[in-house]
Amino acid sequence: MLDRNRLFPAEPATRAMAAKLYETVRDLPILSPHGHTDPRWFAENKPFPNPAALFIQPDHYIFRMLYSQGISLESLGIPQVDGKENADPREVWRIFARNYYLFRGTPTRLWLDYAFSQLFGLNDRLSPANADEFYEVIAKKLQTPEFLPRALFDRFNIEVLSTTDAAFDSLEYHQAIRASGWKGRVLPTFRPDAVVDAEYMGFQGNLKKLGEVSGIDVSDWKGYLAALRSRRAFFKKNGATATDHGHLTAQTADLSLQEAERLYQRIFTGRTQPGDVELFQAQMLTEMAGMSVEDGLTMQLHPGAVRNYNKLVYEKFGRDKGADIPAATEYVRALRPLLGKYGNEPNFTLILFMLDESTISRELAPLAGHFPAVKLGPPWWFHDSPEGMMRFRETATETAGFYNTVGFNDDTRAFLSIPARHDVARRVDSAFLARLVTEGRLDEAEAFEVVKDLAVNLVRKAYRL
Amino acid sequence: MLDRNRLFPAEPATRAMAAKLYETVRDLPILSPHGHTDPRWFAENKPFPNPAALFIQPDHYIFRMLYSQGISLESLGIPQVDGKENADPREVWRIFARNYYLFRGTPTRLWLDYAFSQLFGLNDRLSPANADEFYEVIAKKLQTPEFLPRALFDRFNIEVLSTTDAAFDSLEYHQAIRASGWKGRVLPTFRPDAVVDAEYMGFQGNLKKLGEVSGIDVSDWKGYLAALRSRRAFFKKNGATATDHGHLTAQTADLSLQEAERLYQRIFTGRTQPGDVELFQAQMLTEMAGMSVEDGLTMQLHPGAVRNYNKLVYEKFGRDKGADIPAATEYVRALRPLLGKYGNEPNFTLILFMLDESTISRELAPLAGHFPAVKLGPPWWFHDSPEGMMRFRETATETAGFYNTVGFNDDTRAFLSIPARHDVARRVDSAFLARLVTEGRLDEAEAFEVVKDLAVNLVRKAYRL
Amino acid sequence: MLDRNRLFPAEPATRAMAAKLYETVRDLPILSPHGHTDPRWFAENKPFPNPAALFIQPDHYIFRMLYSQGISLESLGIPQVDGKENADPREVWRIFARNYYLFRGTPTRLWLDYAFSQLFGLNDRLSPANADEFYEVIAKKLQTPEFLPRALFDRFNIEVLSTTDAAFDSLEYHQAIRASGWKGRVLPTFRPDAVVDAEYMGFQGNLKKLGEVSGIDVSDWKGYLAALRSRRAFFKKNGATATDHGHLTAQTADLSLQEAERLYQRIFTGRTQPGDVELFQAQMLTEMAGMSVEDGLTMQLHPGAVRNYNKLVYEKFGRDKGADIPAATEYVRALRPLLGKYGNEPNFTLILFMLDESTISRELAPLAGHFPAVKLGPPWWFHDSPEGMMRFRETATETAGFYNTVGFNDDTRAFLSIPARHDVARRVDSAFLARLVTEGRLDEAEAFEVVKDLAVNLVRKAYRL
Repeated sequence: MLDRNRLFPAEPATRAMAAKLYETVRDLPILSPHGHTDPRWFAENKPFPNPAALFIQPDHYIFRMLYSQGISLESLGIPQVDGKENADPREVWRIFARNYYLFRGTPTRLWLDYAFSQLFGLNDRLSPANADEFYEVIAKKLQTPEFLPRALFDRFNIEVLSTTDAAFDSLEYHQAIRASGWKGRVLPTFRPDAVVDAEYMGFQGNLKKLGEVSGIDVSDWKGYLAALRSRRAFFKKNGATATDHGHLTAQTADLSLQEAERLYQRIFTGRTQPGDVELFQAQMLTEMAGMSVEDGLTMQLHPGAVRNYNKLVYEKFGRDKGADIPAATEYVRALRPLLGKYGNEPNFTLILFMLDESTISRELAPLAGHFPAVKLGPPWWFHDSPEGMMRFRETATETAGFYNTVGFNDDTRAFLSIPARHDVARRVDSAFLARLVTEGRLDEAEAFEVVKDLAVNLVRKAYRL
Repeated sequence: MLDRNRLFPAEPATRAMAAKLYETVRDLPILSPHGHTDPRWFAENKPFPNPAALFIQPDHYIFRMLYSQGISLESLGIPQVDGKENADPREVWRIFARNYYLFRGTPTRLWLDYAFSQLFGLNDRLSPANADEFYEVIAKKLQTPEFLPRALFDRFNIEVLSTTDAAFDSLEYHQAIRASGWKGRVLPTFRPDAVVDAEYMGFQGNLKKLGEVSGIDVSDWKGYLAALRSRRAFFKKNGATATDHGHLTAQTADLSLQEAERLYQRIFTGRTQPGDVELFQAQMLTEMAGMSVEDGLTMQLHPGAVRNYNKLVYEKFGRDKGADIPAATEYVRALRPLLGKYGNEPNFTLILFMLDESTISRELAPLAGHFPAVKLGPPWWFHDSPEGMMRFRETATETAGFYNTVGFNDDTRAFLSIPARHDVARRVDSAFLARLVTEGRLDEAEAFEVVKDLAVNLVRKAYRL
Repeated sequence: MLDRNRLFPAEPATRAMAAKLYETVRDLPILSPHGHTDPRWFAENKPFPNPAALFIQPDHYIFRMLYSQGISLESLGIPQVDGKENADPREVWRIFARNYYLFRGTPTRLWLDYAFSQLFGLNDRLSPANADEFYEVIAKKLQTPEFLPRALFDRFNIEVLSTTDAAFDSLEYHQAIRASGWKGRVLPTFRPDAVVDAEYMGFQGNLKKLGEVSGIDVSDWKGYLAALRSRRAFFKKNGATATDHGHLTAQTADLSLQEAERLYQRIFTGRTQPGDVELFQAQMLTEMAGMSVEDGLTMQLHPGAVRNYNKLVYEKFGRDKGADIPAATEYVRALRPLLGKYGNEPNFTLILFMLDESTISRELAPLAGHFPAVKLGPPWWFHDSPEGMMRFRETATETAGFYNTVGFNDDTRAFLSIPARHDVARRVDSAFLARLVTEGRLDEAEAFEVVKDLAVNLVRKAYRL
């Protein structure tokens, strides 16, 4: 079912060049420095449950599309806030199969076809007619040793897999993995959103947890920063090489110590004034940058999503249910306080992600093409797709070059999609480079270097792996 | 003159695939669910006047380009507000022919060449040398029975043609068409802008007309809504399946009943406060959505044009003279009140159009790929063009899929351009799908289904035709 | 080293068409109506110094990329504000050679390879291994008569080269060029930023200079305008055909005489209120447009760059050091005051440039496709690149056509890159036109006309050369 030349341009000379380039990176190890898999899977190494629970229920790409066509989330067995969930996984799978045509032209379709074919030997297109057969085959294989999480990790040839973890996380599963003697490298990433965003669900409780796990009194600004510093050191000791920050905007601030102390008091006591919540997040990005200068953790900024946009879905099903919608994002003025302070630091790496493609050629590539600290993250989320990746290269490269980018992130909870996603990225990069070669814009020998740099070397360097 | 393979990619395998796909939709009937033709033409079925009056004077795509190069609107016989207009149509035609080179690379050129060749057998390129010959041939044919409006409608193989009609319109011509026994399906569309936008020319008089035709006192909020409801029912009885809303922004609101009542009082009495006009339009979008949930009329929103931008042209020549200029448009925050209320309704279809391409991948596709009510309108106005359509597919499909789009709209006053416009759309969609097939991203069998869905099935479904 | 078919699409039929088109414009003279070369070079006709001083130190495209990868500006010999600069040019060249791979995929690489190969016969790729050889060869040739500025000007087949000059410039070098009897046409361009932007370094002193050189008292609004008018006349007498305006935004204003007089008083005395600086610049754009209507100088507007964004670099190295970053730019509302007043003037040409590509299809092409005065400048600065130029044609042409554009600008201080830049532009335009021909959207005969119009005719017309 999978076309050997998929995602390569049809023009024969370019296609041949792309295929040659791809051949040299196809089997390189996977570096996955940013994602959302669950470390518990690898700590416990238990079988994945049924096909619906594996493919559909954790993957908002899939159920948002089904929902957009009037299929209820209840019928898909999406867990509800009140714990209700009683869909028959086999019936969920049938609904999915009946609507598989909706994914035509989407990357989800590419990832799924790849997993069905490469992992399960299912080479027909999923349809109502073969839905039950797919279900049986997948369900049976998931119970075999070859499909246990660690076995898949090894089979996928993953060199490093980073997870995303709250600032107060105990990292017990990461520690259990190390203790187990298994050699798979699963690293935590320090994500402090829940103790930085005062509107985050349970914020006050989160601050309390932060104080507890760090053993530091967080009731004043100094203590709060010390607690974060201490957690960063703990993460680093447990293998972390990076932090991650999900904000509505890219706004940063550079307050005086006195201003920052007062602001934190209002945040800590919950007696905030209008604008405080945003200003505190802005200030905290600059503080986190400063700590990165100290401890060398690479900093990732993911701005631009209006979270939990659909009130009805949020109230019934909670966060991360496919109802986050991007908005226009401004980087240049927003980042000026942070970059004015730390942008010239040679020891600091700030990776910028975007959900607003108009910023690539206008703001992001010019920033990355000047500041030593700034690098461009790969196309993210809605743009992690063949057209999105190709547009990224077309709009970023001429100003930022290749060497201010950082390779690919799969950014996924869907573990089985990881090889497919990296495969798509390597194919699209090969296709882009092949065009540069056939159009006389890059020597062939150079293209072979660049394609390898994009697949592994730039990732290792940017994330210090 | 017309290249059989026009608009197909040059690469032979892709071109062959595009041609095969196109072949299967080329002769399908035309569904035109959104446009601006005059129902009177089909009611009265009189010959169209001369070539200039048919091709140039109603088509702002044409005269705006000529105006941009210093050709006066007076010399083109564009009717003036004070009724003056005395250009010789033959001389207007000569100016047009002399400047036909200005349209190189524009869709206008494609539409015109198609009409000249397919309808009038004129297969040379229009030029100063053959201007008079073109004029003669066209003028003569327009007087023949084969070129009467109904004959052309049938010859164009139009299955449905929707017009756009003010909320207080009598729909007399639509009724006359039905009464005539002619089988052509010409449907009205409910467009309430003139009674919703308090800055619309003659707004107070328009409200008065609304009260009169509905027989309902519109001096309070309840009556005003009842009058609109009654007009919607009248439109529906006369065949309408949709409403249309042209606003400067996509802003919506969800006021309490009391707030809305008070706001309407200020609007009705003309004693508005700053912001009232915009807020009232915002609230009315949500009200109209609520009525669509009730009566099932598909709702179309066309935001983003700064109307009547050129004061000098507006004062002398009035509305719709090629001087409307798009502006950046925000959808995500703007639509939240409406979508929070009605976005999850299974019985509601809201079709979003855009003049700001940066919103497609960032805002529109994510909204359509989640909300059951939201669908994406085809590329509109300045983007109804080969490059515009292709970019639309490239930026919308990966997130929204094909099945959250609604096929093509010709959106035109230029009746003779309708077949050409649909032909362009079918060719570009065939070209896009052909690329997906040759790049191994879609099976050939699926592409044949999708191309037909885009040409007819998705239109019928979205507009309930 | 240079591929004969570089920048042409790989598909053979399109490539052949592109090559045929390019062949007809390759050797046409270069018109360079907007740039930043130094007229003193041509007045004095002294040899250019060493390779580093020629290629690296004046070219912010080059040193910004090196800086982004952690290479200090000191080590590159970039002159500092305090006059310090003591890098060995040969060592600078070695750093550059060692990092030449960073430019893969950038236009800088295309320009440099072209210059090395075509001017110096250096046909290998620059590398650490051949760095010294390159240095020697270039250094030696620069001392020969064939590499003196005037000889290169003639060899480049430059028909006109415009420089950019402050409003109070004496134009002594332009006068010296004329007086010398050499036939090279080097024209000044009137750039009044330094006497219009009250935050410009040395603004008060600049006003004083303006008063002195014009011999007009600039202490009131009337005198200030008279002084500018007098300088424009002086520039025109010395060959200028255009003015240029670099603003942060495209904002214009149309104040009453009284308002303008009062505003100028506050600006002149330095007692400004918040918003005055911006409003004054906005008003001055409209005033400059009015003067262009009178004296026929073509007006160029370059908005959208946040200048001197990196404080550390600015304080140590000053302006124009690769640290200007574009921001989102709004044109439609911003230009309404100016266009409402002068946009319909047949004798006025306003060329709009952009650093925000999302505005091309949304704002700029619609404005240029309507207003007689508005023309679109070529893709500028970060977009003066193969992908940037191609996107410009793809997004501008369908609405504005070709004939509301003005050909190419090289906009460079890097004299030796001029032929390469024009070569890239001619190749990309040939490639775009070839696609239109092979896709049946333009006749071949027309494409040959258009490619020549883009290379020379539209430039001559727009800039009245």
